[in-house]
Amino acid sequence: MILALSLSALVGCTTEKDASSQETSAPYQGSRDEKYVMVTFLSGIEYWKGAFRGMEEAAKNLGVQAEYKGADQYDINQQITVLEQVIAQKPDGILVTAINPDALVAPINKAIEAGIPVVTFDADAPKSKRYAFLGTSNYDAGVTAARELARLSGKKGEVGVVTVPGQLNHEERKRGFVETIQKEFPDMKVVSIQDGKSDQVQAAQVTSAMIQKNPDLVGIFATEASTGVGVGTSVKEANKVGKIHIISFDTDKGTLDMVKSGIIDATLAQGTWNMGYWGMHYLYNLRHDLVHPVSDWKTAKVGPLPPYVDTGVSVVTKANVDFYYPGK
Amino acid sequence: MILALSLSALVGCTTEKDASSQETSAPYQGSRDEKYVMVTFLSGIEYWKGAFRGMEEAAKNLGVQAEYKGADQYDINQQITVLEQVIAQKPDGILVTAINPDALVAPINKAIEAGIPVVTFDADAPKSKRYAFLGTSNYDAGVTAARELARLSGKKGEVGVVTVPGQLNHEERKRGFVETIQKEFPDMKVVSIQDGKSDQVQAAQVTSAMIQKNPDLVGIFATEASTGVGVGTSVKEANKVGKIHIISFDTDKGTLDMVKSGIIDATLAQGTWNMGYWGMHYLYNLRHDLVHPVSDWKTAKVGPLPPYVDTGVSVVTKANVDFYYPGK
Repeated sequence: MILALSLSALVGCTTEKDASSQETSAPYQGSRDEKYVMVTFLSGIEYWKGAFRGMEEAAKNLGVQAEYKGADQYDINQQITVLEQVIAQKPDGILVTAINPDALVAPINKAIEAGIPVVTFDADAPKSKRYAFLGTSNYDAGVTAARELARLSGKKGEVGVVTVPGQLNHEERKRGFVETIQKEFPDMKVVSIQDGKSDQVQAAQVTSAMIQKNPDLVGIFATEASTGVGVGTSVKEANKVGKIHIISFDTDKGTLDMVKSGIIDATLAQGTWNMGYWGMHYLYNLRHDLVHPVSDWKTAKVGPLPPYVDTGVSVVTKANVDFYYPGK
Repeated sequence: MILALSLSALVGCTTEKDASSQETSAPYQGSRDEKYVMVTFLSGIEYWKGAFRGMEEAAKNLGVQAEYKGADQYDINQQITVLEQVIAQKPDGILVTAINPDALVAPINKAIEAGIPVVTFDADAPKSKRYAFLGTSNYDAGVTAARELARLSGKKGEVGVVTVPGQLNHEERKRGFVETIQKEFPDMKVVSIQDGKSDQVQAAQVTSAMIQKNPDLVGIFATEASTGVGVGTSVKEANKVGKIHIISFDTDKGTLDMVKSGIIDATLAQGTWNMGYWGMHYLYNLRHDLVHPVSDWKTAKVGPLPPYVDTGVSVVTKANVDFYYPGK
């Protein structure tokens, strides 16, 4: 900024008025030396790519750099190590997803105490000092699943759930689904809730048993992607495609292929792009001291950002599934 | 970017090429001809000023204009008229709070069909086509109130609530409070829930009765500002300041004065600035076609923005109350 001003002063083309208007009106022109880093666990999976694409697009708009660093395993210590290494490089901000709610509290707080803005996405570390969390409201996703299944089945009939009991995100998806069926659709009933153990084969087995026990079943909500493919396999084997409607979760290739072929009626895509895009904006705004909910939030000890953003789910059907294959 | 521009200035002021490169690499440099409008009901109240301050600050950062239009009454038809007038002016985006969830559905949809981005704040119109809603999670605000009251009372003792039964936002605040006391504080108990009728005198009366019936009371949560002042008045009259801790809501002058004088221990300030600041960013991003959760969200029928932002509450105590007086 200062460099730009002095150079334009040298040539005299840019007038005083231009310079000052540029200065006050372009706070969103970052420096290419600025670097913001996304940190995840399981770095190889497709799921994070949408989030990083959003972060990169925001960084491009803001004129700064975005970088991705992942721990390749599902391993707490490995993610802590990667995060510590990123902190040591003193980036301008960190967008991090937490492998577990407690494990990253210490390194996140260390970063913030060192003046590095930190925002969490997808999976939160609520006891840390992170400034905001952007992720899917799993309860609301379950509500969406219930309404979509009701629409497909004419708002009547018996439905089931195949889920992963005990995992908070899955419990919330199930609860949103079950409570919405109960509240909004008096002619529908949840007759079976089964454990698919996040496993395609296991999910297919419990689904086959569910179909045998409940011959009038008109729909199944699978709260997870492998589960959904297992449910789809079983419904296809039972020759019930189109009779038993399936709502699944996420957009891995196996799921998208079953949506495309009509076995899975709809899957819920999480707003990963939103997490990256707006998470990057939050970090940039903190870095450049642009947010002022009160005149001096640090002294007032007031949170500078919205604490939680529900990045939502989108319903993916045959009509729009092509937009969700990688590269689209 | 700035360096590039200044260097090109060296060789001959602003050229055609400079202008186009500025366009592509500075997407956050809006035009001063762009106008975004905030629309509310009850335009005279202090509450909206924080939200518009946030919108103005974002507009300044983005180089565009923000304008405020309010219906001065608490009157559905009047707000519809004001909103229709604003739509007729074809602004670049509208940030609107809904006097009731259904009344503004038709004009909001009309605006969107005319290509004007609309985002709601503070009070939503969930059945409309608005792209996002930014507001307080009232349940979470109740959770914050419970934890703050527990901290003040050493996590033990009997507490009460003075609220406005039947109004959804107040029901949610109460529910968040009561459920958190039950779940997290085994040595605390909610012994009384009273109707303050959003009225200072009425709230003082029910509080006096509550204190008489429950001599061991250590705290009261008032879910609304006039209620909180009534509770404060009653606690002061009973000579129980410091013995019965009070958590109130919002930051009107009466409440702030009681926080400053120590009668009310803490009040919860809503994130109105956040609603205006990020609501403005959402509108700008839509207007300039900057958000791409999928390659073409209009064709794919995918929501372009996070559907919900919890703009949070901040705890206002004697320590930071001065930051909340108007003009600070």
